Order: sequence, then structure tokens, then C-alpha cells
Amino acid sequence: MAIDRAEIAGGILEIDVAGIVTNWRLLKRRAAPAQCAAVVKADAYGLGAGVVAPALAAAGCRRFFVATLDEALALRPMLRQDAEIAVFNGLAPGSAAEFAAQRVVPVLNDPGQIAEWKRTAGRYRRLPAMLHVDTGMARLGLTLPEFERIAADLADCGAIEWRAVISHLACADAPDHPMNEWQLARFAAVRRRLYGIPASLAASSGIFLGPAYHFDLVRPGAALYGVNPQPDQPNPMRQIVRLGARILQIRDVDAGQPVGYGATHVMSAAGRLATVAVGYADGWLRSLSHRGSGRIGGVRVPLLGRVSMDLAVFDVSMIDPAVARPGALIELLGDERGIDGAAAEAGTIGYEILTALGRRYHRIYRGTGEMACEPRRLART
Amino acid sequence: MAIDRAEIAGGILEIDVAGIVTNWRLLKRRAAPAQCAAVVKADAYGLGAGVVAPALAAAGCRRFFVATLDEALALRPMLRQDAEIAVFNGLAPGSAAEFAAQRVVPVLNDPGQIAEWKRTAGRYRRLPAMLHVDTGMARLGLTLPEFERIAADLADCGAIEWRAVISHLACADAPDHPMNEWQLARFAAVRRRLYGIPASLAASSGIFLGPAYHFDLVRPGAALYGVNPQPDQPNPMRQIVRLGARILQIRDVDAGQPVGYGATHVMSAAGRLATVAVGYADGWLRSLSHRGSGRIGGVRVPLLGRVSMDLAVFDVSMIDPAVARPGALIELLGDERGIDGAAAEAGTIGYEILTALGRRYHRIYRGTGEMACEPRRLART
Repeated sequence: MAIDRAEIAGGILEIDVAGIVTNWRLLKRRAAPAQCAAVVKADAYGLGAGVVAPALAAAGCRRFFVATLDEALALRPMLRQDAEIAVFNGLAPGSAAEFAAQRVVPVLNDPGQIAEWKRTAGRYRRLPAMLHVDTGMARLGLTLPEFERIAADLADCGAIEWRAVISHLACADAPDHPMNEWQLARFAAVRRRLYGIPASLAASSGIFLGPAYHFDLVRPGAALYGVNPQPDQPNPMRQIVRLGARILQIRDVDAGQPVGYGATHVMSAAGRLATVAVGYADGWLRSLSHRGSGRIGGVRVPLLGRVSMDLAVFDVSMIDPAVARPGALIELLGDERGIDGAAAEAGTIGYEILTALGRRYHRIYRGTGEMACEPRRLART
Repeated sequence: MAIDRAEIAGGILEIDVAGIVTNWRLLKRRAAPAQCAAVVKADAYGLGAGVVAPALAAAGCRRFFVATLDEALALRPMLRQDAEIAVFNGLAPGSAAEFAAQRVVPVLNDPGQIAEWKRTAGRYRRLPAMLHVDTGMARLGLTLPEFERIAADLADCGAIEWRAVISHLACADAPDHPMNEWQLARFAAVRRRLYGIPASLAASSGIFLGPAYHFDLVRPGAALYGVNPQPDQPNPMRQIVRLGARILQIRDVDAGQPVGYGATHVMSAAGRLATVAVGYADGWLRSLSHRGSGRIGGVRVPLLGRVSMDLAVFDVSMIDPAVARPGALIELLGDERGIDGAAAEAGTIGYEILTALGRRYHRIYRGTGEMACEPRRLART
């Protein structure tokens, strides 16, 4: 009864953990002498924070960012006591005591959060925090007027140990966008008011805007996982994920055959179709309908019709039937066509392709070194 | 340290289990005297098969459909022995023994699967299966030529107990589409060849095409969870999910303020913004950028700029600041604006809104009766 789950899984997701570490080291060198943190929010962009963060910690990473307190609490026992875990979404009302007890660092986003953390820190003698000042996204962080009002008091927050002052670039992936210099100037002005507090502005793309953007700490996320931080240039990052979709069935069809829901694709000639066990419930976005693609036997095969919840159909008319057969895999993500390519077909960004990756895939973590995982290579088709 | 997770969660997802049961009963009445199964694949469309299926079983549902063997194995211990669990994706090579041992019913999709199940069934004396004949989707199921070749032998599959012959409609949500009658005629012809085997054609929308489509068994999925099975008419189904997004921060902004990534939205006038802790990593699709909306205080508030991974920004300029305050919830899904409305804004279908629902939400199951859950009402804002 011991069947090989990988053999029957509808999708196989292979994650190159060693490649993530390689990407982190590249970004760290690029940003030196600034420190290099790692952003592992949203379960390390869907790839598994419980595997990714310890691997980066083993490589020397000491500072981690997540989005929520729940994510921080899940990560805390997996990292050494001296690893810093900071929560971008800040201090939700009523959560200060848990932040303090679990040694999680809140990113304080408004004056109310600062006041609450000051009160909590007073009870604990001294507690760490980061300060987020918004320089142009209008999303999280103190507005500049708010900052101006309280800047003089910040240095005097005796009980708060300021680990960093941060801001976030809106257009770092577009190097020529005027927002970049505008935000840089504003952030530099903020920093001058907080002399002595480490400063952090750049995430993945910001690192590639040059040393002026590096300050004391950079915070890459997407680039660790293979997203190109410079969309207009060759990708310097390693591809991290490979996704194979299992062929459930092969069928020969005649010209005129409709394919999939809505009968929105009609075969213009006779052909051969492969139905795979991956659909939008697996995060293979429905916006890939009519325009997605995969690869098998080294050849691109187009997705036909609409993506279904659990299924998608590819045209394998040009593929050797000995290769495109039930049980074989069509590669949806790989070295030749990575996450940015899939994102372009879906009309989104690589970040969403990653975070949408589904729960039904059989996951294989490669390059985990001494970690308790089973590295296995995805059979190439 | 015992803090209320619901109070600090970035998103609260309330699932009305009693409403799912109500929807199932409505569909069952509508399809009577046909039997009414329940489709709980993709984790009951993202809502939790482990809660939904037992609730439906308690209401009298005996037949369940999932997509994969893994889903069936997860469900098996939660249902009584006499509950039937059928797997749409069929018999993956090498999985027959596990299907047999766990009393899971494969939907056989091609002649190879039929042959393999016949061999397996012979070893077990007699095993149940369903037969899928494709009548126009070109996705899964025997082609009509394949069916013609083996139809005469099917009745003679002594070791296979045929629980049903099924097919699937491509265009059931468009009652006037010619595909419906075309598939109906083909399916009726298939059924005549397999007299005595229960027949099943209709899923949610098919039930509303009328009694001719009901045959012996209907298989609703989406309609159970509140998707409108007749998109051009008022929705007869109860809304099942309510999703509230926590406001992390409120900010006053001036005219000219850019909002979010890419600075693609610029405020045309001064206003007030609310940043909530829900983003595309939570399944709030990035295609909702610039066109999504929520509700607070009974008023629609538009989403501004791009959806971020963990955050989205709404314009709350017109909302009483005592209502739109940090900690309050903006309703993203609810009775007034349900999953179909959100889907329309995202350029997709309600099915994808459901299956994309994220893992970071605090989930509250209501109306579970004697089941071991904590029904709680989401605070209305």
C-alpha cells in the first residue's frame, strides 16, 4: 500500500533552497557594506518559511521580516534566539504583550502604535522596534507631517530600542521613475533627524538602484525567490521553483472540437490534447486561460481554452506521443520559462504567481543541506 | 497572554455552514426525484471539506465528489462507511490498490483506467467505479469513439460495480447556448447503451436547465457555496462567506498623493485612506487593483491603486472617522456584495474567488450544529 505520493501527485513543486541561499548571498554582496535581511512574509512568498528561513539563518542571515504577528510566532521556534523577526504590519491593538513576550519586533506605523509600544516597553525596561515613515506610497508608515510632529521625541523614547527606521519604494522596479529620487530625498531627510538609528529603504529592486539606496540594511524578498528585480534587464537571480503538471489523459480530437468551459476554444484542425491535473484552485490563475503555456520534451505547448478549477488542457499535437503520455509531466515553471514568464502570460507579476502556488502540489525541497528534508530531483520530461 | 486571535487577525472569514446545508436542500428539492450529491473538491472550494462534508452528511447527503485521491483519503475518516467518495481525476497509474483499500470510487476516464480497474476489481471480487464519457468538453472522459469501441463490453465488466455514468456540461451557465442540447443528446445516447447504470450530467448550473438534465444524480458544487448558478437571473442561493479586512492604519492625504506600487493611482483631491491587512497573498486577486471595492458602515468604498501582497488601500474619505478607524473591518465579501460581485470586479468567476481564499484569515464556522466548532458572528462594521 506504500505508494509513491510523487508518482500520483497532480502537480510536483520543486523548490531549490540552496538557490535561495545563493540568491541571498548575491544580494548581500551587492548591497555590502549594508546588512542584508530576508523577507519571508506570506510563508516565504508561498515557498515555505519554515524551510527557507532556517536555511538562510544557517548561511548567516540574522534579520527576518514577516507581515503578521502570526507569521512571526510560527517562525520564532525555528530560529535562534538572536535572530530578529520584524512584523511589517505593525502593532495590532491588543497584541503588544505578545510581541514583547515572544521577542518579536514590531514595525511601528503610526503615532498610536509608538505610544502603545512605549508604554509596553516601559514595563519590560527596554524593547526593540522599527519605525516606518512613509515617503510616497500612502500605504503603511507615519506620514511626513506625523513624523515632523514627533521626531524630536523619538530619540527620547528611552524604553524603545530603535533597531531601524524604514521606508518603502513604490517604483524601484522602474529605475528611471522620478518617484525613486523623490522618495530617496525624503528618506534621507528623515534619517538626518534620527541620526544613529540604522536606516533601511531598499527591497529587492531597490538594491539595484545603486549604493545611495542601500543605507544600513536592505530587505530583499522577491529576488530571493527568483523574481527579476530589474524587469528590463537579464535576470541576475537563479530560478528557484520548478512546477510540473501531471498529464491525466491524452485525447485525439477533430477539427471543430470545442475545448473546456464556455466552449471558447474550438480546434481549427485535428490535434492531440493533454489534460493536466492543475487548475486555478492550485493557483494556476484563471487569467492564464487562452494564453498560458507549458513545456514538454523541450517544446512549448500552449494552454487551450479556459483553465478549470482542477484541470487545464494543453495542445500536444506536435509532441511525440511517447513523451506526451498519461503520467508524464508538463513543466509549467522551470529554468527556461520561469515565474516572470508565467506572470507575463497571466497579466500579473511573479510575486503573485509565487504566493498563489497551491497546497495540493507534492513539494520537494532540494539543497537543504543538513536540514531534515528529502531532496529529490523532479524528473525532467 | 491569551489574546483573542480574531481581534488581531488581518482578515476574518466567516463561513455559514448551515447556509451550505440550506443550499444543498434547495438543490435537492429542485432536482428531485434525482439524487443529490455534493462536490467538495479543492477543499470544498476553499471553505474546508472537513467541516462541509460532515455537515452535509448529517443532512442526508451520501455521495461526495473530490478531484484527487489525496482529497478522498483526507475525507474518508470524516464520513461514515456508507458515504460514497468519488474522484473525478480518475485512476492515476499505480494508485488502484489504494483506491480499493480505502473504498474510494474512481471516475474512470479512459480505456486504460477501465482495464486497470477491471484487473484490480477481479482481485477484490467486485469494486465500485464511475464511468466518465466526454460529450463536448475535451477535458476528461472517454471520447465518443472510445466509448463506441468498448460500450458492448462495459455491461460485462463483471468485477466492476458501475455506480454511475457521468458527463459534464461546458456551457450550463448559459441556458441558451446550443452546446447544452447537443451534449444532452449525446449523453442520452450514451445512457441508452448502458441501460440500468445510474446517469449523471448536471452540476450546479445544469440543475437549472430543467428536469431533462437531471437524470438519476446531480452533482452541485459552486451553488452550494453561494455562486449564482444562473448568472443572468437573481441568485437563488444563500451567500455563504463573509470576509472582513482589518484596517491597520488611517491616513489623511493631500491631492496629488500617489497610492501604492507603481504610483499608478494619484489622489485627485485630498482624502482619507484606510490600509487593510489583506492582499493578493490572501487570494484577494491582484486583478482587483484599481477596480475592487469593499463596504464599511453600509457604504461602498473603492480600492485605490494596486493590491499589494499583504495590503490593500481603500478610499474612506466619505466614511465617519469613528467608523473607519484602525482595528475596524472593511467587508470584502458579504450579503450585499457577494462572491459573484467580487469576481466581476476581478474579471473572473466566483469559483476562483472562493478557491483563492487565503490561509491567513481567521476562520469562523457558523451553524455547525452539534459539530465541534465555535460558531461566532463576525462583528458588523
